[in-house]
Amino acid sequence: MNKVIGIVGGVGPLAGLDLQQKIVSQTIAGRDQDHLTVLGVSRPSTIPDRTEYLLGQVAENPATALAAQVQLLAQMGAQVIGIPCNTAHAPPIWDVLRAELAGCPVQLLHMISEVGRFLHEHYPNVRQVGILSTTGTYRAEVYPQVLAGLGFTAVTPPALMQESLIHPAIYHPEHGIKSCGRVTERARQDLLVGVAALQAQGAQAIILGCTEIPLALTERQMGDTPLIDPTLILARALVREADEGKLRPYAC
Amino acid sequence: MNKVIGIVGGVGPLAGLDLQQKIVSQTIAGRDQDHLTVLGVSRPSTIPDRTEYLLGQVAENPATALAAQVQLLAQMGAQVIGIPCNTAHAPPIWDVLRAELAGCPVQLLHMISEVGRFLHEHYPNVRQVGILSTTGTYRAEVYPQVLAGLGFTAVTPPALMQESLIHPAIYHPEHGIKSCGRVTERARQDLLVGVAALQAQGAQAIILGCTEIPLALTERQMGDTPLIDPTLILARALVREADEGKLRPYAC
Repeated sequence: MNKVIGIVGGVGPLAGLDLQQKIVSQTIAGRDQDHLTVLGVSRPSTIPDRTEYLLGQVAENPATALAAQVQLLAQMGAQVIGIPCNTAHAPPIWDVLRAELAGCPVQLLHMISEVGRFLHEHYPNVRQVGILSTTGTYRAEVYPQVLAGLGFTAVTPPALMQESLIHPAIYHPEHGIKSCGRVTERARQDLLVGVAALQAQGAQAIILGCTEIPLALTERQMGDTPLIDPTLILARALVREADEGKLRPYAC
Repeated sequence: MNKVIGIVGGVGPLAGLDLQQKIVSQTIAGRDQDHLTVLGVSRPSTIPDRTEYLLGQVAENPATALAAQVQLLAQMGAQVIGIPCNTAHAPPIWDVLRAELAGCPVQLLHMISEVGRFLHEHYPNVRQVGILSTTGTYRAEVYPQVLAGLGFTAVTPPALMQESLIHPAIYHPEHGIKSCGRVTERARQDLLVGVAALQAQGAQAIILGCTEIPLALTERQMGDTPLIDPTLILARALVREADEGKLRPYAC
């Protein structure tokens, strides 16, 4: 019996759809009926911005609203759940979320631990891992902390580049991907500068650590460096937990 | 207070995601938190193929499984619900679905009636409406029957063209959109032949009456003929019912 997948959407709304589309693309299926059961809840109005919370700009921890969505999914029958938002995995949010879910009988996957597991399996020689992310994820050191526990060393852009190029590629009111609802040429160019900087700093793989970044950097590899899309890895992990026999081989 | 939107997904899995993406694109929003609440259930393994049912190839009416998904969405809190599958709106399925939902306190939108309403509002001079669809929708005369009640005359391709070009563009094992999971050049070319034939038969607007067809014909207009995407119209109707103030103006 397959497990039912649940998706906490709305963080942001397109990231939940991106995850669900990747679940479809990573599933071995010849017709509609072969696809896995997926339940989705997208209630964005209730979830404070994760980055703003980590940066101290809003007081309410998004963990409470995220926990309510996980609980609703569990009531509906979801058994294995993912949250396609890197920043939500920062310990100040994730740890509170886990605590609020004490006793809730669902399997909540941790996207960033899944990325570490994936790197071990597919790129066993990689030790130095570059991270492109929002400044919230950057300052909270979400990836460095989790990856250190898995034997990796994280490489992040210099602070000035992070503030002036990487974060604005996502959030800038005029050219940021979130604000524009699409990838602007400026956003892609600025992220490419980030990729080159991380390569120069010794990154052997680069994690596109914000759900908007893979929209701008769609390549699976740049030069010798694999680019890792955590949403894709989370999709694969959800398919694996739901029905491992239906997981497509990973295409580099 | 906004209404909560529910989506019966899985018919097919990508159509539900397409509808949800169009809800996002048709909503006036400046940040994640401005978007509407959307609940989705995609349980494709339980829903018999709608076209196969109408063609007598499977005995079980998909209405029962669809009703179960509507009821689950209602239990989760959905108040206005859409089903992004043209064939499910054929009376032999839809009428049974409505009967199974007697007493269920949700507003279930009828995608094809919404298309008629949209044509009246945006193209008031149109009377002859061309239809591209699966052979199940074609033989069940889903669009001709519903549109006739709204004052339109439906124009459909000749039977031979329907069987040999239009239906295979969606279902053919080697070049059909459903089988390939993407739009092949052959599928697009065959659908373009259908558009030209309907124009020659006097169609003043053409309905892309299967959720896969707008993936191949992304133009909003061909020559003087508007192409109508029922999934987009259903998305707009759901936004209108949830919170009319958030509905974007229609861009031709």
